[in-house]
Amino acid sequence: MVSTENISCVLAFFFDVFPFCRNTGDDDVSIKVLYCGICHSDLHTIKNEWRNAIYPVVAGYIHLLVTSSVTNQSHEIAGVVTEVGKNVARFKAGDNVGVGCMVNTCRSCESCEEGSENYCSRIVFTYNSVDRDGTVTYGGYSELVVVSERFVVRFPDGLPLDRGAPLLCAGVTVYAPMKQHGLSEPGKHVGVIGLGGLGHVAVKFAKAFGMKVTVISTSPEKRQEAVERLGADAFVVSTNASDMKSVMGTMHGIINTACASTSMHPYFALLKPKGKMILVGLPEKPLQVSAFALVGGGKTLAGSCMGSITDTQEMMDFAAKHGVAADVELVRADEVNTAMERLAKGDVRYRFVIDIGNTLKTD
Amino acid sequence: MVSTENISCVLAFFFDVFPFCRNTGDDDVSIKVLYCGICHSDLHTIKNEWRNAIYPVVAGYIHLLVTSSVTNQSHEIAGVVTEVGKNVARFKAGDNVGVGCMVNTCRSCESCEEGSENYCSRIVFTYNSVDRDGTVTYGGYSELVVVSERFVVRFPDGLPLDRGAPLLCAGVTVYAPMKQHGLSEPGKHVGVIGLGGLGHVAVKFAKAFGMKVTVISTSPEKRQEAVERLGADAFVVSTNASDMKSVMGTMHGIINTACASTSMHPYFALLKPKGKMILVGLPEKPLQVSAFALVGGGKTLAGSCMGSITDTQEMMDFAAKHGVAADVELVRADEVNTAMERLAKGDVRYRFVIDIGNTLKTD
Repeated sequence: MVSTENISCVLAFFFDVFPFCRNTGDDDVSIKVLYCGICHSDLHTIKNEWRNAIYPVVAGYIHLLVTSSVTNQSHEIAGVVTEVGKNVARFKAGDNVGVGCMVNTCRSCESCEEGSENYCSRIVFTYNSVDRDGTVTYGGYSELVVVSERFVVRFPDGLPLDRGAPLLCAGVTVYAPMKQHGLSEPGKHVGVIGLGGLGHVAVKFAKAFGMKVTVISTSPEKRQEAVERLGADAFVVSTNASDMKSVMGTMHGIINTACASTSMHPYFALLKPKGKMILVGLPEKPLQVSAFALVGGGKTLAGSCMGSITDTQEMMDFAAKHGVAADVELVRADEVNTAMERLAKGDVRYRFVIDIGNTLKTD
Repeated sequence: MVSTENISCVLAFFFDVFPFCRNTGDDDVSIKVLYCGICHSDLHTIKNEWRNAIYPVVAGYIHLLVTSSVTNQSHEIAGVVTEVGKNVARFKAGDNVGVGCMVNTCRSCESCEEGSENYCSRIVFTYNSVDRDGTVTYGGYSELVVVSERFVVRFPDGLPLDRGAPLLCAGVTVYAPMKQHGLSEPGKHVGVIGLGGLGHVAVKFAKAFGMKVTVISTSPEKRQEAVERLGADAFVVSTNASDMKSVMGTMHGIINTACASTSMHPYFALLKPKGKMILVGLPEKPLQVSAFALVGGGKTLAGSCMGSITDTQEMMDFAAKHGVAADVELVRADEVNTAMERLAKGDVRYRFVIDIGNTLKTD
């Protein structure tokens, strides 16, 4: 049995043993990783809750390390360019850059050609995925990553690398559908279900768009935080009938970041006619959706997954311009295990970010 | 017990006894009803399956007549103007006109002001509804209807009144969301679930838009009809795995006219990334919707209810221009009961229309 106390040496072991990245190819950008966010999907993957783990899998979560698996992961990578291939025009050594959820796609399907490569059926995720050359991707819990130029975004001036890293997944996951579905217009009213890693940046983007924002949460204790610190205009407790009634039929849209498979009916009632609920969480069990709730008001339930690279760059530039960044808790590389355990309990406001540049020891 | 054979005299009785319409007001159009389609929602209302019947309710279905209720109904009304109020500018006596699902709204809410009055929360339906003056609306199984000019549409030249009547509900119910959701562009591929009153006109509109159309049905025997007579490009049986696999990931959208509460999962698999399923049927039980099916491909499940008056006029004009009309079976007024019973069994291709002008006897 490996105890949790041994995590730092275990991590170091994996960083040493596994060839986590290829050499810099002609179209590649090599990046020294400085910060890497811990996304909740890392935890889903570690626990194999989505039943798609490619073994060996996992760094930083001792239980699975012991039983079966290892890899580094995460897809909220912020760093500095160390080297570029000869065909790379957009980046040079010293540039601050980011890598989000994907590092490759087929580049020729309808989704790729229309700039929605996040929906390419042959997408290669930043970790737990098999690249087109057959290698497994290992993400950003690493000293160095090598990524095709096409999947690298520029960190704009003024956006801090530590607080900007989570935007590469959490940020674009909420920003892209808000833009796509017309939920970015000043004066409109948007609800945000769930005040976690995704929800808190959804609130920030919505306020930056000039919208009215209501946080919908199961946790009454988050009210002060939501309104006073994050700037939400209102806060309702989803289990409080009076709260819910007070905002019925008022919202143009809802960003649903929750992972619970509850009935959607009470939430649809908050939408105006033609309102849209955007699902960005992934509850395991099927949702119960009343046709009457959708048809009667011409309402929409739309899923959305990440964003394109163009969306991601636009989101990063918008964030820099409007001072949007994630609220993070920096952790050392040897604290990853504890962070994962706290994340599993929801004990983080709102994103752990690993300070890889200053704390990872690989020698 | 009133037997089904007595329906004609029962109908005549109700037409005599009840004051089915008001006098022509300043903003009103009085219409001699010539044809009236029998919509499946009539049957839902007669049986009170939507639990919203306003008693007395129902003409033409003997069982409820006996037990509790009476009214005339239906909202697919085609006729000729007999008289107009002094403020009416768009119509004159002798014009061919139609009335669809609604005859009034609040005229001042956000939906009304943006031209989506079909989503007004104070909508007054053409039957089984209470108008703003407190009177109950009784629909088009009648000799005469009086409707505010704002809710009357012009029957364009070339669109026959009998085959055009069902477009006023069934037609606009599929046309409006196809336009709204970008499912009207030539070359796109649309699926149509269910080949009934709504489904068959969805196929016709989609072909008129220049789209590829695949009918998705539980009834293999409808294949020839769908392809050879209605012009669908393909036909798949939803319970046949091989059929379904052959069209996986190929559709930009699906118009779902079915009323069964089955899992949506197999249908979502037919959609391309960012594809949209439009729900226009009203299954009683909640639908089972997998978040993975929606989120993974950025797919949408959108409800849609009828269309605005602007949508309706546009649809009628488009139908006339492109030769789209419903396939109907004309019935006499004294055959309504039988028609209702056949409709309940799905025994109609594809819409019953009552020839009120020639067969209703009220004296």
